[in-house]
Amino acid sequence: MTVVVPAEPVGVLTGAWRECVGTGRMNLSLRHDHREALARVQREIGFRSVRGHGMLSDDMGVHRPYERDGRHVRHVTTYLDQVVDGYLEHGIRPFLELGFMPSGLASGDQTVFWWRGNVTPPSSYTEWADLVRGTLRHLVDRYGLEEVRRWPVEVWNEPNLVHFWEHADQAEYLRLYEVTAHAVKDVDASLQVGGPALSPGADEWWEPFAAFVTERDVPVDFVSRHAYSSGPAQHVPFGTYQDLRPPQELLDQFGAPRRHLAGTALADLPVHITEFNTSYRPDNPVHDTAYNAAYLAPVLAGGGDLADSFSYWTFSDVFEEEGVPAAFLHGGFGLLTHRGVPKPTYHLYAFLARLGEQVLARGEDHLVTRHADGRLAVLAWQPVDGAARGDERRTLRLDLPVGDVARISTHRRRVSEDDGNVWTAWCHLGRPASPSARQLDLLHEASVPAVEHGSHATADGRVRLDVPLSRHEVTLVEVDPVRDETPDWLDDTRIPGYR
Amino acid sequence: MTVVVPAEPVGVLTGAWRECVGTGRMNLSLRHDHREALARVQREIGFRSVRGHGMLSDDMGVHRPYERDGRHVRHVTTYLDQVVDGYLEHGIRPFLELGFMPSGLASGDQTVFWWRGNVTPPSSYTEWADLVRGTLRHLVDRYGLEEVRRWPVEVWNEPNLVHFWEHADQAEYLRLYEVTAHAVKDVDASLQVGGPALSPGADEWWEPFAAFVTERDVPVDFVSRHAYSSGPAQHVPFGTYQDLRPPQELLDQFGAPRRHLAGTALADLPVHITEFNTSYRPDNPVHDTAYNAAYLAPVLAGGGDLADSFSYWTFSDVFEEEGVPAAFLHGGFGLLTHRGVPKPTYHLYAFLARLGEQVLARGEDHLVTRHADGRLAVLAWQPVDGAARGDERRTLRLDLPVGDVARISTHRRRVSEDDGNVWTAWCHLGRPASPSARQLDLLHEASVPAVEHGSHATADGRVRLDVPLSRHEVTLVEVDPVRDETPDWLDDTRIPGYR
Amino acid sequence: MTVVVPAEPVGVLTGAWRECVGTGRMNLSLRHDHREALARVQREIGFRSVRGHGMLSDDMGVHRPYERDGRHVRHVTTYLDQVVDGYLEHGIRPFLELGFMPSGLASGDQTVFWWRGNVTPPSSYTEWADLVRGTLRHLVDRYGLEEVRRWPVEVWNEPNLVHFWEHADQAEYLRLYEVTAHAVKDVDASLQVGGPALSPGADEWWEPFAAFVTERDVPVDFVSRHAYSSGPAQHVPFGTYQDLRPPQELLDQFGAPRRHLAGTALADLPVHITEFNTSYRPDNPVHDTAYNAAYLAPVLAGGGDLADSFSYWTFSDVFEEEGVPAAFLHGGFGLLTHRGVPKPTYHLYAFLARLGEQVLARGEDHLVTRHADGRLAVLAWQPVDGAARGDERRTLRLDLPVGDVARISTHRRRVSEDDGNVWTAWCHLGRPASPSARQLDLLHEASVPAVEHGSHATADGRVRLDVPLSRHEVTLVEVDPVRDETPDWLDDTRIPGYR
Amino acid sequence: MTVVVPAEPVGVLTGAWRECVGTGRMNLSLRHDHREALARVQREIGFRSVRGHGMLSDDMGVHRPYERDGRHVRHVTTYLDQVVDGYLEHGIRPFLELGFMPSGLASGDQTVFWWRGNVTPPSSYTEWADLVRGTLRHLVDRYGLEEVRRWPVEVWNEPNLVHFWEHADQAEYLRLYEVTAHAVKDVDASLQVGGPALSPGADEWWEPFAAFVTERDVPVDFVSRHAYSSGPAQHVPFGTYQDLRPPQELLDQFGAPRRHLAGTALADLPVHITEFNTSYRPDNPVHDTAYNAAYLAPVLAGGGDLADSFSYWTFSDVFEEEGVPAAFLHGGFGLLTHRGVPKPTYHLYAFLARLGEQVLARGEDHLVTRHADGRLAVLAWQPVDGAARGDERRTLRLDLPVGDVARISTHRRRVSEDDGNVWTAWCHLGRPASPSARQLDLLHEASVPAVEHGSHATADGRVRLDVPLSRHEVTLVEVDPVRDETPDWLDDTRIPGYR
Repeated sequence: MTVVVPAEPVGVLTGAWRECVGTGRMNLSLRHDHREALARVQREIGFRSVRGHGMLSDDMGVHRPYERDGRHVRHVTTYLDQVVDGYLEHGIRPFLELGFMPSGLASGDQTVFWWRGNVTPPSSYTEWADLVRGTLRHLVDRYGLEEVRRWPVEVWNEPNLVHFWEHADQAEYLRLYEVTAHAVKDVDASLQVGGPALSPGADEWWEPFAAFVTERDVPVDFVSRHAYSSGPAQHVPFGTYQDLRPPQELLDQFGAPRRHLAGTALADLPVHITEFNTSYRPDNPVHDTAYNAAYLAPVLAGGGDLADSFSYWTFSDVFEEEGVPAAFLHGGFGLLTHRGVPKPTYHLYAFLARLGEQVLARGEDHLVTRHADGRLAVLAWQPVDGAARGDERRTLRLDLPVGDVARISTHRRRVSEDDGNVWTAWCHLGRPASPSARQLDLLHEASVPAVEHGSHATADGRVRLDVPLSRHEVTLVEVDPVRDETPDWLDDTRIPGYR
Repeated sequence: MTVVVPAEPVGVLTGAWRECVGTGRMNLSLRHDHREALARVQREIGFRSVRGHGMLSDDMGVHRPYERDGRHVRHVTTYLDQVVDGYLEHGIRPFLELGFMPSGLASGDQTVFWWRGNVTPPSSYTEWADLVRGTLRHLVDRYGLEEVRRWPVEVWNEPNLVHFWEHADQAEYLRLYEVTAHAVKDVDASLQVGGPALSPGADEWWEPFAAFVTERDVPVDFVSRHAYSSGPAQHVPFGTYQDLRPPQELLDQFGAPRRHLAGTALADLPVHITEFNTSYRPDNPVHDTAYNAAYLAPVLAGGGDLADSFSYWTFSDVFEEEGVPAAFLHGGFGLLTHRGVPKPTYHLYAFLARLGEQVLARGEDHLVTRHADGRLAVLAWQPVDGAARGDERRTLRLDLPVGDVARISTHRRRVSEDDGNVWTAWCHLGRPASPSARQLDLLHEASVPAVEHGSHATADGRVRLDVPLSRHEVTLVEVDPVRDETPDWLDDTRIPGYR
Repeated sequence: MTVVVPAEPVGVLTGAWRECVGTGRMNLSLRHDHREALARVQREIGFRSVRGHGMLSDDMGVHRPYERDGRHVRHVTTYLDQVVDGYLEHGIRPFLELGFMPSGLASGDQTVFWWRGNVTPPSSYTEWADLVRGTLRHLVDRYGLEEVRRWPVEVWNEPNLVHFWEHADQAEYLRLYEVTAHAVKDVDASLQVGGPALSPGADEWWEPFAAFVTERDVPVDFVSRHAYSSGPAQHVPFGTYQDLRPPQELLDQFGAPRRHLAGTALADLPVHITEFNTSYRPDNPVHDTAYNAAYLAPVLAGGGDLADSFSYWTFSDVFEEEGVPAAFLHGGFGLLTHRGVPKPTYHLYAFLARLGEQVLARGEDHLVTRHADGRLAVLAWQPVDGAARGDERRTLRLDLPVGDVARISTHRRRVSEDDGNVWTAWCHLGRPASPSARQLDLLHEASVPAVEHGSHATADGRVRLDVPLSRHEVTLVEVDPVRDETPDWLDDTRIPGYR
Repeated sequence: MTVVVPAEPVGVLTGAWRECVGTGRMNLSLRHDHREALARVQREIGFRSVRGHGMLSDDMGVHRPYERDGRHVRHVTTYLDQVVDGYLEHGIRPFLELGFMPSGLASGDQTVFWWRGNVTPPSSYTEWADLVRGTLRHLVDRYGLEEVRRWPVEVWNEPNLVHFWEHADQAEYLRLYEVTAHAVKDVDASLQVGGPALSPGADEWWEPFAAFVTERDVPVDFVSRHAYSSGPAQHVPFGTYQDLRPPQELLDQFGAPRRHLAGTALADLPVHITEFNTSYRPDNPVHDTAYNAAYLAPVLAGGGDLADSFSYWTFSDVFEEEGVPAAFLHGGFGLLTHRGVPKPTYHLYAFLARLGEQVLARGEDHLVTRHADGRLAVLAWQPVDGAARGDERRTLRLDLPVGDVARISTHRRRVSEDDGNVWTAWCHLGRPASPSARQLDLLHEASVPAVEHGSHATADGRVRLDVPLSRHEVTLVEVDPVRDETPDWLDDTRIPGYR
């Protein structure tokens, strides 16, 4: 069956897919490898903003009580400024998440993660409001209001889970939200504040949240939640296995805020999916596979219909929620591995970044786009269902509108079980826990997508293209018009070896 | 038929193949693109020295007569020092060629090349000897004698051709050689001087050269000639076609000096092939093809038996002997194109640079080597004969000694008509004379060799490897021992999609 | 006497001083050192466009006649594209100068400069018009019309001098201008064309030029001339001495086009001074001195009142009109020396680049400016007259309006006979013709302006500042408001050594 | 009084001063700013090795117990390899300090520092020995024995202090030392192990340490201690003031191990001062001052007579023992500040790196050296006593042997209260806690030493040089022979402005 692609656009590929990306916690951005990863991601993908935990946690050192004729607090931005300077230098803005609680302001000892983020309410809401105001005021001073008003400010992270908010206490969260939202607006009314950053499975929070902010006139500029499609965790040492529900599950989660808020005062607010991935575990090997890329291809292709942003959690395996990773590939969230090797899902994003804005066709295994200058770019993938292994082989047949040119060239990049696949290559090397310099070179080289090029004569402004897809393949085909500049005197059969 | 490779070395791969490489003329090294090309070549290949024309030509500005109470000459090293500094910064030494004649010292007007190198004898041998002495003395002052004595000094270029030496006057060349060799030794007896830098087809010069220097006790530390295997030129605008004789022709030329000097006092001197290539024309498309690489593979594999160095002419298409190239690919000598894209022959050299020093086997389509640390590296190629198109497909079957390991991984890089082939990709794009930025990106990407990786269980310290070769393919297979670090609790079938 | 600087601006510092800068000839931009120089100049100064000779000369290889069933011409942009790509990568646009004549299109043999630019009229005006159209059309194809219409196109260079235009034939130039201007407009009416690129001392050309283009309705979008203030050349080997007229002479030349065209149809056209400097010789040592910077300071400070651009000839000593420079410092035009060391005049430009847009005061030894954010930046210099040595010492006394702050800091950079002066340092080293690596390091270090910093309390929104100027000094003083963040518990006298 | 410097060397400047430098803890080397600091330090100073705490602490993640049919331990080198790879890439070797205790192996909860290094003995000496063996064996596998045997292995840090070793229990330390030393030698007998890494004021440990290892035949390849000269801490918020004893105190401490071990079996072992500085507090402003540099100048000049290495603690202010620094300058140990600005003491080290190996003279305010090529390099400083402010001005008068040259040039770099002094500049800016981008630029520029250059005629192979020193100045004067290449036709008085 051939997909006959129309010449007129059927839609637009919005920038929702690149609007935001996740980083583990802000402090990681002080790291060399994390910055190199960001530099690469920005060069080849170009996200607009980056969100991470722990902006106010101890390792950022912002909240600093001291004694001098009584207790005082100093707001120290030594690290915060360094992190934000770094983001901006790499052309990416912070998507601020206010949390977790500084020890000196915490009401309890409960922490989350290896790096011990304190998840208890503030011991003093006044001091918390001062901290929020002081920090944002400093950011406005340093970076200018024009800039900072483009940084969404999200209040806390997944307060519906006991891991992230003591007792998952809804009333306490609403109090935190209220105090915080007002503190943000105290700095400037144009700053954008929102929440409640729910985890999957907490849709029952939407109604009370909407009711609370409406009733008490609490500022809300956007709403946010997370999306993951994995089932219960089955642990092994340093790892976890999980089943996945089909990709549509993620799209359903993307759409949930609008469904649940329909009819409320929050119905028309921007919706940010401030985290998503297949598995929510940083040690599930699925993240390292081509399967993960093929699984997410339709999600990235379609998510923009449902949300204003959806933020892949996370761009780099440099991430410490479960401690220092015990092996090079360890099921981390990252688009890039430790030592900066791209995983298949990285390439999926890099392919998206080369698509055009006009959507000419979208189907279960393809997204055909056109650039403003007329060039076509086709994303194709093997559909997978979250469970069974993909097909050995599948062919997408396209009939493309290429306009008034006699010839086009094709340039194709392929990622599959064998190509552009660091995981397969690492398995071939015996899964070295800490690869040697030589092994890292081989892995880098093996992670480059396979490239194929060709050219085709057109007929009536159209060209037929068969795109064979191997197992778990994600592929990009770019179609360029060809202007033939071959001089008439050239004759390749006169070259030795080309008779 | 399977090649059963012995575990014991049958020989050594000497460094003769990387001892020297050609650059058009020294002045080109002032160019940005030429330096970038050198940087890449040195990073991935690592030649030991570089030889080019025109060290004393006008565009280097060394010989500078001026009037002040009569005629004086100043030796100006502004550019020479800049060129040599650049070489040394890139880890490559100059192989000095003394020539051509500065206008202010020339006895006539005859020039060679678009850039007009004067090829007439000096109007004053005294002033010429001063120039040689002055220049070398300056180099010794600036770089130290320890360094400069490692730079061979060759007297002139192809004096047997009327294009390069007025009337191809042998007696005049011998005079030049004598004066020059003594001038070099005046600076320091340890400096290395040689000649006569003959073109192919001039073997009748060996006997008189040997007789002259022996009789008159003229210093000679090495002898040199060039090697090319192309036939008569058939010109088209901005281009040339030529037939090629089989690759063995080049090896025969490499061996000629030793054959012809046998029995003379020069019999045991080092032999430098200071230029070689298939065609001697800078506008023959064969240089751009995979065919050129397949043709040269056995020459590089075997040349070290016959000469102490053989210098590919040249490392970059940035070269102006026939003027400014009229198209991106134009049949230039370069390993790298304008704008720095590697051609197939570049990859052949890069593959050589990854071979081990021990030779385990050598055949018409393979060279099996081993590194000091035990890793194997195999160079394989489709044999070509200089005329007809290569086979569609050919398979090399190897039985390799891999030592005491249970498993090995293979990492293969392929260059052929379709892979790692800038010429094919450029043809697909319509042969743009001056590719756009986007086209250059595509060409760079298409020029990367295809990569394949795998792993194999061994048996009795050996492994069987089939290496299918497509048309005009040159391939490198690296074989690494595998230490399996897979923890026993890992089970890939528990990853979604890998059931 | 104290200069009491008003708080309200008295004018604007236009961008005329940075609108354009000269490069010897376009081909030089293929060089490594020339690009490094451009990169530095752009990083620290930031010119908007760059103008050079020889766009159509043989070494750019554009005009390429060939035989194939008769004579044909190919327009080859291999080098032109490389040069222009490089400019744009460095954030600078070409200011196109159409010339000199390709050998294959020349009517005679007369050349100018060591690099032999042919200065004769075309043998065929039809083929010349084709060349102009073909080249510009290609540029529009490659870079887009939006971009190329921002590149002024100047017809030829100094046609009033016999060195640059055979017989300085005015009628022939007008014919060339007419044919060329129409050819430019054939490509697109929005392209900007102008001339006549006069040398100093040719003001009698303005009237006939204006009359000719008006009468014959020839397109003119801007007018251009050059400005130099040096007297007759007194030659020594590899060098020239000349007297200078006072700096006002340059400003008078800048103003000449408007004076001479007043009342004509060209009266309101933009005026570009497409070359200027003290001496017009590339071998006059004055260019290397602090005197040159002090001399030009008032010219740069005031030139924007008189012309839309004035282009310093040239940004780098990499320049070959008189051949390869025979010594490191040789009186070249460059802001940067060979090997990239900044001369005093470079720093003058770098200081200008740090001034604000509002002019608060301008005098014979100062230019006081304010940035949009309120910071002051003061350029000061020792006035010189073109002849005698400057004062040993002079003090500029300023009373500055600093606004509502209690304290300001000052940051001063000084260039004088001793500071930031590569020439003095080079003399101390014995004027080495080709400095060693170590000497180059010392010269680079000695070329950095001396830095002084301080802070001052303000009174009534003002501060008094004394700026002592040593011989031939050019200095920049930046004044920043200080917000004192010193905690009250700090006490420097408790630091050992600060009692 | 003039110092008449003899032409014959009186000694050698050993490399002890650059043999080692401190970094806070190993994990910091994962940071971007820390690596940039290391890169700069290595480029301009070039230390041989680097020592830091926490190699085995939790944030390096090496010791990883897990459950799988009982308790197991995995040795994970993900971060360790990354840190060591980074060191070697920057040309510096690790000086390994074994400690602190991983939580999973600790016998108690006591920690030191903000980053919580556990300082209790292992709960199992068997598991500890496994950890030591496993880690070192991995390092030998990865980096080769030839390399690792050049990395000293020090057992723990300051066990004589209760902060660093529970109860400062000497018997327990000796047990730890014994087990550890044997574990190290189990890997390879050629690995170098030592201790006891004493803090100042613990000389009573030498005798029992020597007795213990001798009696029980425990391997010891070197001995180590620390040196600091500050008195009791006087705390203010985020800072500390302390008195300093005179510089000789540090030299006395350097010499203590040899004094105390004289006559024991350890008498001839290498002595490493594995930490030293003025103050032992990371928040004492003295570290930021020129005074610190002037104070340490004689220590660096003379320390090599007393110890085989003395390691400045530390090269960068990126350091977290007291938490995240609350201000840009905060009295940190670093040679470089946060954001990489050099402090005066950095320049002292950079000056040392430019000295020659032959010592011609050494005095209370000078160290005169000569390079192998004959160039002189003089380090001079204002002597300070640890208490009072230095002199306003002081002049060192030298009579130098310069050999057979007619002229010499001088190139001087100055660091003092005003020059090359980031602290003074920061005070002028109002001590901003987190400087803006603009302020950082100004601070970087203000931190460059002032440069002065000149030239002098010699007489009888000698030259007199007066070196005026301003307050707290540390200065380097390099003396180069001058070969005058000035052509006889140059006449500077013919340059305008130089009459």
